[in-house]
Amino acid sequence: MTKRLARNSELGYLFDYNKKPVLTVEEGESFIVETEDNLSGLIKSEKDPLVENLKHLTKYDPPKFNPVHGPIYIKGAGKGDLLEVSIEKIIPAEIGFSAIDPEAGPLCDNKKWPELGEAYIKVLKNIPGPSGTTRDGKVIYNEYISWDLEPMIGTIGVATEYEIHGTLNGQTPCCGNWDCKDIKEGSKLYLNCFHDGALLFLGDVHASQGDTEWTCSANEVKAEVSLSCKVIKNKKIPYARIEREESIIQLFADKPLEDAVHRAITNLMSWMVEEYGVRAKDAYIMISCSPEFKVKVYQMVKSPNLPYVVGAEIPKKYLKN
Amino acid sequence: MTKRLARNSELGYLFDYNKKPVLTVEEGESFIVETEDNLSGLIKSEKDPLVENLKHLTKYDPPKFNPVHGPIYIKGAGKGDLLEVSIEKIIPAEIGFSAIDPEAGPLCDNKKWPELGEAYIKVLKNIPGPSGTTRDGKVIYNEYISWDLEPMIGTIGVATEYEIHGTLNGQTPCCGNWDCKDIKEGSKLYLNCFHDGALLFLGDVHASQGDTEWTCSANEVKAEVSLSCKVIKNKKIPYARIEREESIIQLFADKPLEDAVHRAITNLMSWMVEEYGVRAKDAYIMISCSPEFKVKVYQMVKSPNLPYVVGAEIPKKYLKN
Repeated sequence: MTKRLARNSELGYLFDYNKKPVLTVEEGESFIVETEDNLSGLIKSEKDPLVENLKHLTKYDPPKFNPVHGPIYIKGAGKGDLLEVSIEKIIPAEIGFSAIDPEAGPLCDNKKWPELGEAYIKVLKNIPGPSGTTRDGKVIYNEYISWDLEPMIGTIGVATEYEIHGTLNGQTPCCGNWDCKDIKEGSKLYLNCFHDGALLFLGDVHASQGDTEWTCSANEVKAEVSLSCKVIKNKKIPYARIEREESIIQLFADKPLEDAVHRAITNLMSWMVEEYGVRAKDAYIMISCSPEFKVKVYQMVKSPNLPYVVGAEIPKKYLKN
Repeated sequence: MTKRLARNSELGYLFDYNKKPVLTVEEGESFIVETEDNLSGLIKSEKDPLVENLKHLTKYDPPKFNPVHGPIYIKGAGKGDLLEVSIEKIIPAEIGFSAIDPEAGPLCDNKKWPELGEAYIKVLKNIPGPSGTTRDGKVIYNEYISWDLEPMIGTIGVATEYEIHGTLNGQTPCCGNWDCKDIKEGSKLYLNCFHDGALLFLGDVHASQGDTEWTCSANEVKAEVSLSCKVIKNKKIPYARIEREESIIQLFADKPLEDAVHRAITNLMSWMVEEYGVRAKDAYIMISCSPEFKVKVYQMVKSPNLPYVVGAEIPKKYLKN
């Protein structure tokens, strides 16, 4: 039977190497994590009092945003290895929500639309698609507008070497509240390991999200995530990477935004040159000239100490020599 | 017969309202501009001496980068009106090039790949596609790698009200060296007018370009561009806008990059709210939650006084009320 972490089992708010593993899996073994939403399950309808609930979450140290399950101990992984996390399926709940926080978001203090400084919860109906689940369903926004669900994991990573990071703020090369649209079904996420068993944590699924996650709140949901892991021995990368069937994507988080873009692209070049044998000049020129080279601004949320997250993506057809 | 500005007719390097019009067209009349490449036609093969040619271009005031034809006088346009420029066709030359300038580009001083600090010209072969022209052709990079051409106009705009800007640096809401991938076939570009006849200038076509135009040089080409213009009386917009069949795109240029992104999105919201009657709250939440809301980093070239150029794009299906 597939191992499963139930939603109501122990949740945490830190990528903490001191925490005792809550699950142990073999390399290649599929397992399921029932994730909780970013506000720890407090919002159930549009009538819930948002401000009081946000206050409740911030009353704790660390604050109870972006709960994660973990650590999950992956047998065979150790310090100096690289973990490959395959995201097999993400099934978001049929009710998601997006919140306007009166204290946060880029337009909370604007005078043109003062209503954007008022607390507001919009319930989003996620309906099943061809698979019979919300994996490939749609959001019904109103009677005129709907869009495809594109479920993704907002907060994921392995425990860092010695520092301990919260699941709300702070990114490192191996863990963070990245809010990256490409950490989705069919993606392999690569993370440096610093501890025996790698110590994987994840939570905070978004059923859908726009570039930048402008308001600080995507289509936030509970979800059921199926994953499996492999270990690549003795390998280190500069920052988390994603591989998809058709492309490779180098992540980077930093402020200002151009620094994140610059570092994502230079690390993408290193990946192309060092692992695929592309000549540096060819990588440099193809990046500059191909319409298929993409820069993605995943998260640009205005929040102290939260770096912006970008991806630099190139199709695999550019990796031939 | 369709009016045409020949490549070898007078070229300029300023968006200059004092310059006498070189062509006058009626509203709705198609016309053709044979554009010159960004290095004023100096590069003909990979053996051309790049450094000497760049020095030659910078010896002039203004420097001879990004030559434009114009001004083109559009009858019926005047101060306070909005010009709609329809880009009907862009046929790039069959030989394009990309240059590595030893003095410019983000990696010109890096120690990891010192060859990226050496002058280099890569000739790019643009071959015709289904239309029988390079409008929809391909780039042959080498025996393994090719990609689709996606021709676009790098430098375009109308004369500003009182300042005069060069075609190399400097963007304004109505003109600039934007290097925007979406100023392409099928796009309508909207520009505020400040003078009788609008005074349109354009040049610097790229047969293809990656996000950010990383090295500062795309697939640079001569091209034949077909356009037509319409005038919308008494209308002003905050910054150049693009409309495509399926989406609207708000441009903005600024430094740092997050400021450009922020302003592009807030101006996109104004467009949605003021012209399509979308409620501000709905625009705000849909931007944050829809995977189809895109931020595009068109140009992020490291150059003094050259702001970064971004676009915020939303599909038209989100504009229903």
